[in-house]
Amino acid sequence: MSTTMKTADGTTTIEAVEDMPAIRMSRDFRATPAQLVRAHTDKDLFVQWVGPNGSNMTIDHWDARTGGSWRHHGDLDGEEYAFRGCFHTVRDDRLVQTFTYEGFPDSVALETMWFEDLGEGRTRLHVHSLYDTYEGRDGMLSSGMEVGVNDGYAKLDDLLEAGAV
Amino acid sequence: MSTTMKTADGTTTIEAVEDMPAIRMSRDFRATPAQLVRAHTDKDLFVQWVGPNGSNMTIDHWDARTGGSWRHHGDLDGEEYAFRGCFHTVRDDRLVQTFTYEGFPDSVALETMWFEDLGEGRTRLHVHSLYDTYEGRDGMLSSGMEVGVNDGYAKLDDLLEAGAV
Repeated sequence: MSTTMKTADGTTTIEAVEDMPAIRMSRDFRATPAQLVRAHTDKDLFVQWVGPNGSNMTIDHWDARTGGSWRHHGDLDGEEYAFRGCFHTVRDDRLVQTFTYEGFPDSVALETMWFEDLGEGRTRLHVHSLYDTYEGRDGMLSSGMEVGVNDGYAKLDDLLEAGAV
Repeated sequence: MSTTMKTADGTTTIEAVEDMPAIRMSRDFRATPAQLVRAHTDKDLFVQWVGPNGSNMTIDHWDARTGGSWRHHGDLDGEEYAFRGCFHTVRDDRLVQTFTYEGFPDSVALETMWFEDLGEGRTRLHVHSLYDTYEGRDGMLSSGMEVGVNDGYAKLDDLLEAGAV
């Protein structure tokens, strides 16, 4: 299963990994690796772009360091949905964190992000999300996740364009 | 690949999961689920049984709650080896944590433990360790991990027998 989607400012590739319950994503940004790390670890930046348009995100807890943890929730069309996890690794070149949608509290994903410097102020974000079951992975793929992903990354493009990161 | 080993007090089953980079273990104890949770979350108990015999474990950091983190190291035959991770979930019936051997700092496993009450004071511990690559999983399986696992669980048997948990 592989899906490629155009967004206003870029293309996000979202694909299932064949031999493990994982999803692999990549997306190019007009940003340096340091800017993308900041966009993912600075709570005041992160809250401005994560999630689908209109999701009204709130960060409940945020301690973006190795061994820290996080929780945030959104409010979309009157429905609240919350996510939480811990930060396994926060480094200049790599982020590793756990991820649970609280609607399925016993499911968990392990998310690894790294930042490929393409030169000329462009960086390719790589995200590898490993689920503990194939059902969990396939449920995420069929949940409409690409809307949140693409809306979010487009908002991040706008923040970068505006010099806010 | 499946290995079953006898220990003094029980049998640990350690097997690779076929269609994902995971290892599944199970082991019966003469203990209640609450005692096994305590043995895994109380730092003063944990340090007494984890690791192979003679490994001289030290806990460097320990915050066993949802969103907390941990680090410990051992000293075996003059060689120091350290592990670290974060606690994604700490509940009465379930522990979920990340796990990195610092010798391979970019590798990470997601470890889920649950506790099956068998009645009559016996509990089956289930451990599901999901690795981010098949190489990482197979490296762990061929590392001699079963020595540490079996030595550790035998020490835990002794602590339970002695009424220390």
